[in-house]
Amino acid sequence: MLIKAGIIGATGYTGIELVRLLQQHPEVQLTQLVTESYVDQPISGVYPHLQQQVALKGSALDMNALVDSCDVVFIALPHGKAATLVPSLLKGGKKVIDLGADFRLRNSADYQQWYQQEAATEEIQAQAVYGLPEAGYREAIQKTFLLANPGCYPTAAILSALPALSAGIVSLEECIFDAKSGMSGAGRTLQLQNHFCEMTENFMAYQVGGIHRHTPEIEQELTKISQKPVLTQFTPHLLPIVRGLYMTAYFKLKQDLSAQEVHEIYQSFYQQETFVRLRELTNTPQIKHVRGSNYCDIGIHVDRRTQRLIVTTVIDNLIKGAAGQAVQNMNLMYNLPESLGLVSAGIYP
Amino acid sequence: MLIKAGIIGATGYTGIELVRLLQQHPEVQLTQLVTESYVDQPISGVYPHLQQQVALKGSALDMNALVDSCDVVFIALPHGKAATLVPSLLKGGKKVIDLGADFRLRNSADYQQWYQQEAATEEIQAQAVYGLPEAGYREAIQKTFLLANPGCYPTAAILSALPALSAGIVSLEECIFDAKSGMSGAGRTLQLQNHFCEMTENFMAYQVGGIHRHTPEIEQELTKISQKPVLTQFTPHLLPIVRGLYMTAYFKLKQDLSAQEVHEIYQSFYQQETFVRLRELTNTPQIKHVRGSNYCDIGIHVDRRTQRLIVTTVIDNLIKGAAGQAVQNMNLMYNLPESLGLVSAGIYP
Amino acid sequence: MLIKAGIIGATGYTGIELVRLLQQHPEVQLTQLVTESYVDQPISGVYPHLQQQVALKGSALDMNALVDSCDVVFIALPHGKAATLVPSLLKGGKKVIDLGADFRLRNSADYQQWYQQEAATEEIQAQAVYGLPEAGYREAIQKTFLLANPGCYPTAAILSALPALSAGIVSLEECIFDAKSGMSGAGRTLQLQNHFCEMTENFMAYQVGGIHRHTPEIEQELTKISQKPVLTQFTPHLLPIVRGLYMTAYFKLKQDLSAQEVHEIYQSFYQQETFVRLRELTNTPQIKHVRGSNYCDIGIHVDRRTQRLIVTTVIDNLIKGAAGQAVQNMNLMYNLPESLGLVSAGIYP
Amino acid sequence: MLIKAGIIGATGYTGIELVRLLQQHPEVQLTQLVTESYVDQPISGVYPHLQQQVALKGSALDMNALVDSCDVVFIALPHGKAATLVPSLLKGGKKVIDLGADFRLRNSADYQQWYQQEAATEEIQAQAVYGLPEAGYREAIQKTFLLANPGCYPTAAILSALPALSAGIVSLEECIFDAKSGMSGAGRTLQLQNHFCEMTENFMAYQVGGIHRHTPEIEQELTKISQKPVLTQFTPHLLPIVRGLYMTAYFKLKQDLSAQEVHEIYQSFYQQETFVRLRELTNTPQIKHVRGSNYCDIGIHVDRRTQRLIVTTVIDNLIKGAAGQAVQNMNLMYNLPESLGLVSAGIYP
Repeated sequence: MLIKAGIIGATGYTGIELVRLLQQHPEVQLTQLVTESYVDQPISGVYPHLQQQVALKGSALDMNALVDSCDVVFIALPHGKAATLVPSLLKGGKKVIDLGADFRLRNSADYQQWYQQEAATEEIQAQAVYGLPEAGYREAIQKTFLLANPGCYPTAAILSALPALSAGIVSLEECIFDAKSGMSGAGRTLQLQNHFCEMTENFMAYQVGGIHRHTPEIEQELTKISQKPVLTQFTPHLLPIVRGLYMTAYFKLKQDLSAQEVHEIYQSFYQQETFVRLRELTNTPQIKHVRGSNYCDIGIHVDRRTQRLIVTTVIDNLIKGAAGQAVQNMNLMYNLPESLGLVSAGIYP
Repeated sequence: MLIKAGIIGATGYTGIELVRLLQQHPEVQLTQLVTESYVDQPISGVYPHLQQQVALKGSALDMNALVDSCDVVFIALPHGKAATLVPSLLKGGKKVIDLGADFRLRNSADYQQWYQQEAATEEIQAQAVYGLPEAGYREAIQKTFLLANPGCYPTAAILSALPALSAGIVSLEECIFDAKSGMSGAGRTLQLQNHFCEMTENFMAYQVGGIHRHTPEIEQELTKISQKPVLTQFTPHLLPIVRGLYMTAYFKLKQDLSAQEVHEIYQSFYQQETFVRLRELTNTPQIKHVRGSNYCDIGIHVDRRTQRLIVTTVIDNLIKGAAGQAVQNMNLMYNLPESLGLVSAGIYP
Repeated sequence: MLIKAGIIGATGYTGIELVRLLQQHPEVQLTQLVTESYVDQPISGVYPHLQQQVALKGSALDMNALVDSCDVVFIALPHGKAATLVPSLLKGGKKVIDLGADFRLRNSADYQQWYQQEAATEEIQAQAVYGLPEAGYREAIQKTFLLANPGCYPTAAILSALPALSAGIVSLEECIFDAKSGMSGAGRTLQLQNHFCEMTENFMAYQVGGIHRHTPEIEQELTKISQKPVLTQFTPHLLPIVRGLYMTAYFKLKQDLSAQEVHEIYQSFYQQETFVRLRELTNTPQIKHVRGSNYCDIGIHVDRRTQRLIVTTVIDNLIKGAAGQAVQNMNLMYNLPESLGLVSAGIYP
Repeated sequence: MLIKAGIIGATGYTGIELVRLLQQHPEVQLTQLVTESYVDQPISGVYPHLQQQVALKGSALDMNALVDSCDVVFIALPHGKAATLVPSLLKGGKKVIDLGADFRLRNSADYQQWYQQEAATEEIQAQAVYGLPEAGYREAIQKTFLLANPGCYPTAAILSALPALSAGIVSLEECIFDAKSGMSGAGRTLQLQNHFCEMTENFMAYQVGGIHRHTPEIEQELTKISQKPVLTQFTPHLLPIVRGLYMTAYFKLKQDLSAQEVHEIYQSFYQQETFVRLRELTNTPQIKHVRGSNYCDIGIHVDRRTQRLIVTTVIDNLIKGAAGQAVQNMNLMYNLPESLGLVSAGIYP
């Protein structure tokens, strides 16, 4: 019997990517696409790429209807909203996958400080599992009913740092994440910044100086891995492309290691992972190699002059950085093969 | 048992898109990827988006090996080359799908005039079927061993004109096709024109004045439909995008019809077609709605002031305009469901 | 003594391009930059490319202040607004250059039909001169106080047709203008259509079927040249670029002329023009050749099979299609050299 | 009397940008445009944006002709070539501005190590002055006959670091330059990497790990400023845009300073500079604000949690990063106002 899935926030970019992925998923039946702006309109009218693919109309938020018609509910809303919806879904015995930030930070004080908003209750928060399977959460994900899907930047940052921090080969004081994201990460809401004429042939940093809300999420996970506090410098930039995220991570090596030696550490760490592809030595990944896929490609470089490890990491921010990772987590939560419905290569060129 | 498929010219943009589509096809096994430039190199090294997807290496052209290891051979080479390879493949009992121009023109004199090259022998040419299933070729395709896959521009031009010409509602003297193509249509070969800096923020017509080689192909098919000579004006332009083709077609209506009436003619003509999606009245298609899919979206507009029918048509030039259509034809040639392996929606945004 | 110039609507894309051009103009001093959104804010804060170039702040609309501080007032507002502002400026003895549509159509009924709005009074309308110097308006422009600056599409359409219609070599029944415009033509106002993610790697027609408001403007001028009614088919499209407009115009030749013969007609027509550059035979213009300049480049092609003349024309929609043409007209209105402040080449690549 | 200028390598992207700038320069007359590929062809045929602007044809390299017809010679060639041409130009009493790398490194051993090529003779090298006026070289530039125009990356890196290093407020051990460049920086030569389809919607790092040749140039200048060895980490990336360079520089503050305090240090350092524009506190520069201009815009950010200074810097790589800076240096070498011919704002949007 198919898993009945609903999506709250189905017509944003993340939501509609979930629609596309779940629609193709052999074990899922979409039952409810909740939207604020397009109630009772065919989703394929709003997004014509789905014509003849998706027959559902948008529906208004109705918690009873969701509980009745869904086994699992994905929430793709701005932060602060999921926290109020989750209790009744859990009470109804539903599994919940939240693609927002409301359950990612385990420390309520951190949430309140960075999001300027009341955190979820500790009781609810205690049930949440951080959904990055490659970071040691696989077993917990399989058991949880409340999944906190990671942010796009943290996914790339953590995957770039994991093997090095686990192996203890880099300093915890100098972890610099210089990140570049495609514009779909900023969503479909109209702003001057995502006006075509403003962004084409442009590039810029934003929220410079450690003030972006993904900073505490990255530090929480890196600290957990290292079992010691990690202080990071995370700087996001906007790329004039639609999809894709590039992370250039700088680490200070504690000992004089060759690129080859570090490469082996990464290879051994990720060898069982379907969705992490380590590029061969001296190769660097490109955004276009993963666009449209759930892959995370990683390149390893060492500068022996400066004794720094530089890790370059790419994901599609809407897939491995959001909707694809959510499906990967759903597969785990239902004991399905982790890559079911997610194995297609990206589109090139 | 899986269909064993080989590709000659596997590492151009059309070839590699075929690799991606056939790799995902449930009834196909790729056995030979013939390439000039990357013999003995892993294809996934040349095109890293295929890492962990395609294990094959490139191989040199070896007709015996192809005959031994393939049931069907796709040829994605510049025109003039397929004609020399096809006889031995047909003799070996193989099915052949040529994505080039060598077998598209039924009249050898036309081929010689437009391609400045000797045409295939009449014996071979007589076996070729033009592979546009929606244009009445379905039965012939099912029986043929030699499939001439249509050009990208003709696919869009013919699909935009078919119902109108079949119904006899437009003049045969004024068929203007103003076409705009993404840069992948020009292939991977390096030229000044496809230098990133030359083409970004640019747009241009080329081969203006009815001199593009797709002109006789379009006229051949429109003439066949109309059973009277059709003279067309076809002007190609280059768009600063990678994938997608937009056709704005102008026809003179012979009688005063409303948009609604023409829309019904098109709807009834295409209602059984999986891959043609007619947009609702007053809507116009966009390239992005079909990018990454095998769909052809069509919009219908009538200007009663001028008594003109304007049809706007979009395809992904690498899929419905090349590799996807080739797979659609292969499905027909093997009596598989026509859309097998081709039903996924495009990627948006 | 410098000409004191004010701009109403200074912070839209057309307005700010006027600021840039007038700021560099040796005979002009900018005195008033009227804006709705940025009153009392430094213009260089809103548009940082003008930092250290423009010291003025935005000011609210104050007709007395404008009359006091300006010799000439440019209006860059949505249609319908200029008509109410112009009378008091003319009464104050000021010259007015309107970049909107309010004074372009000489027939009030046309204006009301196409713009669904009351036209300017006939008294005011009678004073307006259509500001396309190359179309025979030069002397009238030199004398007028009210200049109706042409639309971007009509500028390209008329310049592509002028010599052919003047020479009477083409049919008046088949004038098809297939136009492609960069996104800056749609202005800075936020709409889903100009969201970066919606438009990148996209292309589409809009207002298909002769319903765009530039249609009557084009027909008015072509009819005037031909001294007989001209019926045109004008189809606008949106290009995924910021600046630039491409016009592919199709005309039916009344007699069998060679490309060379038509080229000579165009060359002789435009030989005195600074801003029209005829490309050599067989060459086609590209948008990038004029981006950032006031040039209009034109290519001539004849298809003798179909007896059609195809003219390809490019302009920068914000310069020759708007702000640059306005400055060219201002130069004429003040008996300055027509190209003063406008001679720089575009930026390439 | 006008300065007679010649350019060797006039038809690459840097060369042609020099042509455009010098053509508009009120004190310069272009006399020789030396090119390998386009001898005897009108330059405006090769680059049609210069039609009606530049009448010169390309000429073959002829040292005598250059000495006869030029006062100053600009060299825009790949490294290794200028070194052989310069002696005879200097002997002829000509001023030389080299836009390549041959005279930038004062230490011949460095040059040989990084460029794998014989350096210029010490006698010639001793005459060369590094042409970054803002870095304390103004007086030396005024006197020299041999100007080594800085690389694009070093220009941005040094300008971002200068005030901080001069004031001694940052550690010399952690200077990380994460650079992102538009594609015009890689020149017009055809490579797979600058194929439109490969680079559009893409982004990548290259030469990761401190191996790019601009590394020793950056370190040479920062070491000179600091009077102590500076070890930098420089990582270049390619942006899918044509022009513009973004530098995100990370420095470790030696003491706890506020953004305001650092901002004042930068403001005071650059207050006399025409071409450096410090953005107000909390603002970050964008590439589009300087595209088409000689400006360098700088933003200052401090993260007190990590005690890091983050400086974001933008230039147009072809102007302040190459041709514009060369003209700025020429102005100094001829005691002209430093900004002559360079004051226009960039083009926006």
